[in-house]
Amino acid sequence: MKRIAYLGIPGSFSFFAGKKYFGNKVEMIDNMTIKNVFTNLIKGSADYGVVPVENSTTGSILETYDQLMESNMTICGEVRLKIHHNLMVTKQNTDISEIKKCYSHPQAISQCESFFENHDWIKPVLTTDTATAAKFISENNRKDEAAIASHDTAKIYNLDILKKNIEKNMNNFTRFIIIGSKNNNVGNKASVVFSVKHIPGSLFHALRPYAGLGLNLMKIESRPLFGKAWEYIFFADFEIKNNLDKFHLMIKEMKESTEFITVLGIYNKGETYET
Amino acid sequence: MKRIAYLGIPGSFSFFAGKKYFGNKVEMIDNMTIKNVFTNLIKGSADYGVVPVENSTTGSILETYDQLMESNMTICGEVRLKIHHNLMVTKQNTDISEIKKCYSHPQAISQCESFFENHDWIKPVLTTDTATAAKFISENNRKDEAAIASHDTAKIYNLDILKKNIEKNMNNFTRFIIIGSKNNNVGNKASVVFSVKHIPGSLFHALRPYAGLGLNLMKIESRPLFGKAWEYIFFADFEIKNNLDKFHLMIKEMKESTEFITVLGIYNKGETYET
Repeated sequence: MKRIAYLGIPGSFSFFAGKKYFGNKVEMIDNMTIKNVFTNLIKGSADYGVVPVENSTTGSILETYDQLMESNMTICGEVRLKIHHNLMVTKQNTDISEIKKCYSHPQAISQCESFFENHDWIKPVLTTDTATAAKFISENNRKDEAAIASHDTAKIYNLDILKKNIEKNMNNFTRFIIIGSKNNNVGNKASVVFSVKHIPGSLFHALRPYAGLGLNLMKIESRPLFGKAWEYIFFADFEIKNNLDKFHLMIKEMKESTEFITVLGIYNKGETYET
Repeated sequence: MKRIAYLGIPGSFSFFAGKKYFGNKVEMIDNMTIKNVFTNLIKGSADYGVVPVENSTTGSILETYDQLMESNMTICGEVRLKIHHNLMVTKQNTDISEIKKCYSHPQAISQCESFFENHDWIKPVLTTDTATAAKFISENNRKDEAAIASHDTAKIYNLDILKKNIEKNMNNFTRFIIIGSKNNNVGNKASVVFSVKHIPGSLFHALRPYAGLGLNLMKIESRPLFGKAWEYIFFADFEIKNNLDKFHLMIKEMKESTEFITVLGIYNKGETYET
């Protein structure tokens, strides 16, 4: 049975991303930090890891990129979750008028701003993540406490959903990567990190090979490294359409116009699931 | 007297960034959200705004970019803060062995991980920001409670610093922008937002003018817009060395290879201060 280290506790978004990717016949290992997920892989106490890498609200999760660079782990898969927020309570036939406190992650609470405006007797209370909020009210078992988390998290902690999709109408996606110690060397997408000299036009010249080979750039981001000698590190995702020869040629050509370049993984673009 | 809307309460990082930029002879208006800062400017109840835009740990603050795009406000200045974390207590001659709880922002607590490992009788408690943590322990006035915040925040809330710079040795910078309703049209740096078609090589071709004109790209980031028609929005900062003619020529040329391009502001690169 595969051992999957993921970020958070049962019911976290990384937990569901892992289940969607690997199915149910796996051993799930919870971790309080992204670093811990990587440590589990390095120690050999997990076969794969699942961590968030990009969020449509807050952008890239740089901690994941930092750990990818520090470890020898590689990206071997991807999952996208479309995230909905649900108001949940303990199974005591609670009416919404009875709720005094509602626990959730600051981002979830902010995305449900209008819900709190329309139910101004409910006080939002911040927690480190949505699954912890659900677990907390489940253990507390008080009639006047609610949590905001995903539909499947309510099932895990035996909670009733009182109100579905209470978020502001928005496209709220998070992208997760599956990490492991072995390269796939197959897939339609690749992630790389590279740096260029701090001189005019350097990024443009570094990107010339990808344009010449007709590959698609899906994402690029410069890493802020204030006060460092290497001011310019870029994370980029390319659509490579399973053309590994073309991709390896691009990397070879990019080596000539970059200070360094490392392939973080070759994998298949992830499916999107609702949660 | 200029009225400055900033993110947070007195003692927040945006508060100090504003003071560093404008000096002390200004009226400071606190705001709970980035959106509120912009609303103050739009309503005319503030002359300038101060908000974070990029952090060396978490990356870009996309909410700031979203508000810049939604409003007609422009970037007219920049400040960088190098952030240190300090353990502070109420003025009661507290010994570190007496502290039971320590309040701070999750990021500050995570950056002081080894401090908590070495002082494992102190329980970290999460707050929405560091200034709120300092204010809270000051108002509570309990001998067994501490906060982690910046040196200047201790002064504002009349707290004693018990231990300085307790963060893990790291370059922890945050960049703030000064926003206003009028374009400077002068400066050595410019921020733009643009989109390109989702076809091979499109970003490369969009960047050709900057390379041709010998300008420097200081930052680039693609905005994740999962499930949107415009999949590709890029935020970029250019070093323009006060050469406005060259910059405007670049924008004119970039118009031919982009779907849209908007100048978010022309301003001077910010000074760096320690806090």
